[in-house]
Amino acid sequence: MAKNLTSRKEDYSKWYNELVVKADLAENSAVRGCMVIKPYGYAIWEKMQAQLDKMFKETGHQNAYFPLFVPKSLFEAEEKNAEGFAKECAVVTHYRLKTDPEDSSKLIVDPEAKLEEELIVRPTSEAIIWNTYKGWVQSYRDLPILINQWANVVRWEMRTRLFLRTAEFLWQEGHTAHETKAEALAETELMNNIYAEFAESFMAMPVIKGRKTESERFAGAEETYCIEAMMQDGKALQAGTSHFLGQNFAKAFDVKFASKEGNLEHVWATSWGVSTRLMGALIMTHSDDNGLVLPPNLAPIQVVIVPIYKGEEQLNQISEVAEELAKDLRAQGISVKYDNRDTHKPGWKFAQYELQGVPVRIAIGPKDLEKGSVELARRDTLSKEFVAQSEVVEKVKGLMTEIQENLHKRALDFRNDHITEVDTFEEFKKVLKEKGGFISAHWDGTSATENKIKELTKATIRCIPFDNERGEGACVYTGKPSAGRVLFAKAY
Amino acid sequence: MAKNLTSRKEDYSKWYNELVVKADLAENSAVRGCMVIKPYGYAIWEKMQAQLDKMFKETGHQNAYFPLFVPKSLFEAEEKNAEGFAKECAVVTHYRLKTDPEDSSKLIVDPEAKLEEELIVRPTSEAIIWNTYKGWVQSYRDLPILINQWANVVRWEMRTRLFLRTAEFLWQEGHTAHETKAEALAETELMNNIYAEFAESFMAMPVIKGRKTESERFAGAEETYCIEAMMQDGKALQAGTSHFLGQNFAKAFDVKFASKEGNLEHVWATSWGVSTRLMGALIMTHSDDNGLVLPPNLAPIQVVIVPIYKGEEQLNQISEVAEELAKDLRAQGISVKYDNRDTHKPGWKFAQYELQGVPVRIAIGPKDLEKGSVELARRDTLSKEFVAQSEVVEKVKGLMTEIQENLHKRALDFRNDHITEVDTFEEFKKVLKEKGGFISAHWDGTSATENKIKELTKATIRCIPFDNERGEGACVYTGKPSAGRVLFAKAY
Repeated sequence: MAKNLTSRKEDYSKWYNELVVKADLAENSAVRGCMVIKPYGYAIWEKMQAQLDKMFKETGHQNAYFPLFVPKSLFEAEEKNAEGFAKECAVVTHYRLKTDPEDSSKLIVDPEAKLEEELIVRPTSEAIIWNTYKGWVQSYRDLPILINQWANVVRWEMRTRLFLRTAEFLWQEGHTAHETKAEALAETELMNNIYAEFAESFMAMPVIKGRKTESERFAGAEETYCIEAMMQDGKALQAGTSHFLGQNFAKAFDVKFASKEGNLEHVWATSWGVSTRLMGALIMTHSDDNGLVLPPNLAPIQVVIVPIYKGEEQLNQISEVAEELAKDLRAQGISVKYDNRDTHKPGWKFAQYELQGVPVRIAIGPKDLEKGSVELARRDTLSKEFVAQSEVVEKVKGLMTEIQENLHKRALDFRNDHITEVDTFEEFKKVLKEKGGFISAHWDGTSATENKIKELTKATIRCIPFDNERGEGACVYTGKPSAGRVLFAKAY
Repeated sequence: MAKNLTSRKEDYSKWYNELVVKADLAENSAVRGCMVIKPYGYAIWEKMQAQLDKMFKETGHQNAYFPLFVPKSLFEAEEKNAEGFAKECAVVTHYRLKTDPEDSSKLIVDPEAKLEEELIVRPTSEAIIWNTYKGWVQSYRDLPILINQWANVVRWEMRTRLFLRTAEFLWQEGHTAHETKAEALAETELMNNIYAEFAESFMAMPVIKGRKTESERFAGAEETYCIEAMMQDGKALQAGTSHFLGQNFAKAFDVKFASKEGNLEHVWATSWGVSTRLMGALIMTHSDDNGLVLPPNLAPIQVVIVPIYKGEEQLNQISEVAEELAKDLRAQGISVKYDNRDTHKPGWKFAQYELQGVPVRIAIGPKDLEKGSVELARRDTLSKEFVAQSEVVEKVKGLMTEIQENLHKRALDFRNDHITEVDTFEEFKKVLKEKGGFISAHWDGTSATENKIKELTKATIRCIPFDNERGEGACVYTGKPSAGRVLFAKAY
């Protein structure tokens, strides 16, 4: 009856892929590397969006929308200051299909409808946005510009995985313009903090805030701040980034303003984003061999009520209790589904909601009617108990907080248990191989060493944590002086 | 100080274009035919989205997300049952840019990165969605599927106008699958009714509900229901459509289900959509020579408060009153902006908020402090009055409803005044030329006559209204028998 998943121990990657599909979150589509986000998965994404959008607006940001396409020439302007920028992208070259003259059931691209200039489907929107900001900024009165966009973007990835790496994905991208460097840096930090707060309080996912090394930075950024999370298999996942772009884009697109003092200056820029990748992070932080586990703050259905009955009369009696209960729970702002479908058996429903990570399940059967009780099951601990009907609302209200906190604590314990300080390269390799997780080690600050370690171990520097132990030490690989420990890990 | 617009009388089209840009709603971008939706315009669109989304969800629909790209072969499958389907579209043929070997500052499309099969940027998603539904539907238990998608789509339009016709636009597209024809027809009607309710109650825009003639129908639809609105220049605008697709897409993509009776049957389909075109409709329904006029139900800022002061001390005194007032209004669910910027003068602000259609403006000056009053101005009537501070909240609360209703009434009067019954073709041409608007006339029911009239007058049949006078008559062009009047108009 239950849709059995491969266990995490057996094959974590397979477990993940099966879970995403079987829990109705997403599936692969007919288009290479592009996914279909199914209603249940999309409902979780909508909850993420709503919360992030609220946090962005509370900090003065507004949404806007910029074109899907970027003319090739704008890319060239950007490329000048962003060497190495991803060039695997979808290129639109023509604007018409026509019936194949040799086979009228087929369509061909009309060779006469070739674009004068190729259009790139946006992999990110700095180029098109900064080209637009040029027209918006004349004086300091026009600043700051604090804009966010919710959009789809496309990067032609060769190896894709649902949510984690797809050719098309959904994201938000903030693009701000400021009078001063200090203001732009403060914005970069503010948005990274908002991402961290969202991850911790809503996803119940502990993150480490820090900055990227030069080689892991976004091309064109002078600083990239990030939040890094630890997945159950010991691999790190970059969950959000916030870039201080300096004056690079302003210079590439000639965006200047008259300052209060009357000087003509280039504006200072930031950009920041999170994507549907967060869905992958959410799954790999909390879920278990029975399926998805959702924190109440992001669960589309927080409580499901399942009737256990024989015959219509019994169902009617149970429904009376269930619907009253659902009403009382909803009055407390709790989202409830009463699943009284007669096309599926209770056992099937139990397995399905477990697979889909509904935080609390309430079952009501004939014996519960007699006793005035319900059976209440927690998804996080898989524990069950009987609760008096009169106490269910208070109990569930409490559980919403308790489950949210328990998931965070569990993930935090796991994460903390997976930060290992090492001081020798032998130890580094041993920990990486046997345990995984973050490795806190001294590094000499050079890209050469960073690349060598990556080549030898596949581990990269995830971040230089803001609150990491600073202070002198010897690089774990070269023995040269280090200014402080950084976090290495294999990563998604 | 005021940003003067061309008057509507002088040049309606020019007035529209200027208004859209000067009121900060949208602007053209570097990409031919694609617009940038600016924060203020996008905030209005977000209000529309939020309300529509609520109405969709209340009627059992869920959101999901399908790929941006449609493989050419899926188009071919669809084409078979949808001849004449728009083929002006953006075609992705390659997946890589590389540095030009002859000029390293340039990028070229890598000829070695040619896709095996071209991808079309979705002009609408029936093909990709029905290809997906094939995998979701086995039995009647899997039905109905009630899904909506908020997305961007691209149609390669040659002549574009901001909001009204752009190469890329934002929309929602519902795609539903049903067991029976009756159920699908009911869904088609339900969604058309929801669009009508949204237009009337939120946009304050009267619409006529009806069905399209065969030649105006969506390719692949068996029936297209629509809502038609009348713009201030006497041209009609199709504001939303809801299609009954019969079993056409189910057959093209082989989507069958086992019925309760155990038969294998093709499912029945609908699709329905509204787009950022509604922004154009909103503007052309209410706005005037001073700029945008917004119904309170869709205004991002419902009330703006402007202080009129000399010196900081006066500003502080006014701010105390203004901020208290803003707080009290917000407590009533009214969105308020207190604009105390010292970078702009009151006159500039008055003109700006008038241009941007803020429904109510409150000005507070030193004399108001003395008298305990404020000056309150309505955007819809451009009337002003002094109101005691103690009465402002009640007054404004009432105005939110009053302005909403007044705008609807004004538009309804205009629309009703622009439906003219005619019984001869001479009259038809005369009314169309001198007055415009909807022309209610008998029609013989043939595409030939419809096309002839279109050729001679540029007027098309906007719809066969559901509640129009049925009954026999003689076609206004051929004199042949007619089953009832239909509405002709020139249209956007």
